[in-house]
Amino acid sequence: MKNLFAKRVMNTQKSFIREILKVTQNPDIISFAGGLPNPCAFPVAEITRLADKVLKEGGSEILQYTTTEGYYPLREFIARRYTERWGIEVLPEEILITNGSQQGLDLLGKVFLDSGDKVAIERPGYLGAIQAFSLYEPEFIQIPLEYDGIDINAFEKVLKNDNIKLCYCIPNFQNPSGVTYSLKKRIAMSFAIRNTNTVLIEDDAYGELRFSGADLPPIKALNNENSILLGSFSKIISPGLRVGWIYAEKEVIEKLVIAKQASDLHSNYLAQRIIYSYLEENDINQHIERIKQVYGRQRDLMVKLLEQYLPEEITFTKPEGGMFLWLTLPKELPVLEVFNRAMEERVAFVPGMPFYTDNKGDNTVRLNFSNSNEEKIEEGIKRLTKVLRTIMPKRRTK
Amino acid sequence: MKNLFAKRVMNTQKSFIREILKVTQNPDIISFAGGLPNPCAFPVAEITRLADKVLKEGGSEILQYTTTEGYYPLREFIARRYTERWGIEVLPEEILITNGSQQGLDLLGKVFLDSGDKVAIERPGYLGAIQAFSLYEPEFIQIPLEYDGIDINAFEKVLKNDNIKLCYCIPNFQNPSGVTYSLKKRIAMSFAIRNTNTVLIEDDAYGELRFSGADLPPIKALNNENSILLGSFSKIISPGLRVGWIYAEKEVIEKLVIAKQASDLHSNYLAQRIIYSYLEENDINQHIERIKQVYGRQRDLMVKLLEQYLPEEITFTKPEGGMFLWLTLPKELPVLEVFNRAMEERVAFVPGMPFYTDNKGDNTVRLNFSNSNEEKIEEGIKRLTKVLRTIMPKRRTK
Repeated sequence: MKNLFAKRVMNTQKSFIREILKVTQNPDIISFAGGLPNPCAFPVAEITRLADKVLKEGGSEILQYTTTEGYYPLREFIARRYTERWGIEVLPEEILITNGSQQGLDLLGKVFLDSGDKVAIERPGYLGAIQAFSLYEPEFIQIPLEYDGIDINAFEKVLKNDNIKLCYCIPNFQNPSGVTYSLKKRIAMSFAIRNTNTVLIEDDAYGELRFSGADLPPIKALNNENSILLGSFSKIISPGLRVGWIYAEKEVIEKLVIAKQASDLHSNYLAQRIIYSYLEENDINQHIERIKQVYGRQRDLMVKLLEQYLPEEITFTKPEGGMFLWLTLPKELPVLEVFNRAMEERVAFVPGMPFYTDNKGDNTVRLNFSNSNEEKIEEGIKRLTKVLRTIMPKRRTK
Repeated sequence: MKNLFAKRVMNTQKSFIREILKVTQNPDIISFAGGLPNPCAFPVAEITRLADKVLKEGGSEILQYTTTEGYYPLREFIARRYTERWGIEVLPEEILITNGSQQGLDLLGKVFLDSGDKVAIERPGYLGAIQAFSLYEPEFIQIPLEYDGIDINAFEKVLKNDNIKLCYCIPNFQNPSGVTYSLKKRIAMSFAIRNTNTVLIEDDAYGELRFSGADLPPIKALNNENSILLGSFSKIISPGLRVGWIYAEKEVIEKLVIAKQASDLHSNYLAQRIIYSYLEENDINQHIERIKQVYGRQRDLMVKLLEQYLPEEITFTKPEGGMFLWLTLPKELPVLEVFNRAMEERVAFVPGMPFYTDNKGDNTVRLNFSNSNEEKIEEGIKRLTKVLRTIMPKRRTK
């Protein structure tokens, strides 16, 4: 049937990252390649208790079909939390429950993108968003990411000159770079987006996981117009339960509900009920605090080791939160050569090319620090920096 | 943002059926409108026990991200069951786990349909399929459904003259009509589809629920070529858990995996593990037998009452399984008038128009018999037939 595939999938290839992840399942290999939360972030005992409780109390209702929009008390909780955190008024009706934020991206593509529409995204940009939107056949325009967020001049120019339908960004601890947008840039973006025909999609999958610096408001809290915010319980409760959400104005939610109904009727109901019970009976802030302490230590260690062992020609980001850190190698050092040598030393990472829609970025590296314990980070970074020092002509003197 | 929506959703309306279902939440109303399984079909106590067991045994692994393809032992079970039931050789690699079969439809649309492609579907056809495919902007061609399956002459003609990309059908206890395809028609379809550029999508969501007559093989078991089969645990274990599957050749599964990864990364893992444990530790056949006894009695009662009270000008199907039954009213009797009168009598059904891509069918009625107990069926059918007898000029003499 291969000659019958739709144009949108005709040229898709198996994901390079998926292939890497298969190789790195070998327990001998220390992998900074994945994008997994640390299992220590999952409240396993509580989820186990609450699964039992929810099923015993709810009985067959929990196993029946339910509404496409999602469990209302959970939508209320999410709306209330935005109000508490950012002082904005959010209605439960403005929240749609999705299968993680990945489904949010798919539904937004479905609802907004006609073939050929333009999508602006950071450079480097989140691969999952590139994949989700790609299937609606848009044209991607990548906007350079600087140490404090998107290049605002480039952003304003693109908004002005190109007819951008969607602009996608991750202002907190961006995937893959770890960069956080400054308040100044958030404000500038919130202004730039007004009175345009562009919808800003702000993905806040990592926003709760800040280890240093002060929390900054989402762009949607600065300007509600033309603005959509995605959230997820994947990084703070469990990714396997697949519960995320879209926060958008009601008119957009209505279309998203139609798209979601056509996509899978509704999200797993047991998972929604378990997560709601968890939020109701536990202090989520306290739980997040614990995750932040673990991830913060892991980031600190990785940064310290990189400062110590990395050749000085290689620069890297020092993220204030999230799960990733980003290396930029000198131009003359092709990342695939580094990757192959690193695999010989049994340490893995993601070469940065998949985060560029033009396949550039072949001197960049994404490292995940959330999913390895301190012992593995110590050993893995030593292996990786050894490879880099061996390949690099000059050495760091420090 | 409403002027920014994609063409594919610009004209979508809220589903008429969803609106009906909202109205019928009033407990005073006896509703044959929904498409819900009977809660008695859900093994609540076992699911409760197994949720606890799976989480205690699997711990944080159950809450972590997992593979897009789905839990391998569950895919093995599904493959093996096809072998046991139909003697066909199926590999686990030919099974992709989806969020119910509804997501199967969405992913198949994503992977096969370019805008303007032709989709053949029964007349009347399943609304969920029409909705899922609609978002990929195809042209629908409806093929008349007869008492023993699709009109084969029309089917062969459409295959020959039109360039059909997908043909969608429900050979067992079709939704909405309750019709089952004869073996003869299945064989004829399996021949007709060979050497064409058409992919046959066979949706078997109800296939296990046969109360009378002998089980008939899926068309894919008669001819593997150009053929895809959808299945689901929604009607035999639980719809709220959202676990279904696509059975297709590996090359197609590979593209579907890419589409599913972009759509939501993977299906809820806890639900996959619970369902697998249920299948491993219980006799699913025995459980299905119990559901069939209940639904069989409900169908018998509804058919008996309709034979007794319905004006003779109104014909109806006597399904051999599934959840639905279909009434055809005389042309001069508009179903919306019947619907409004029936609501006054506090009994609801689905008027047939949404199952027609040209909005015809305004003399047809879908009745669900799975979700009402015998007492409600007795009272509800009396109310409904009273309305019909009052509106109809002639009465059934019997």
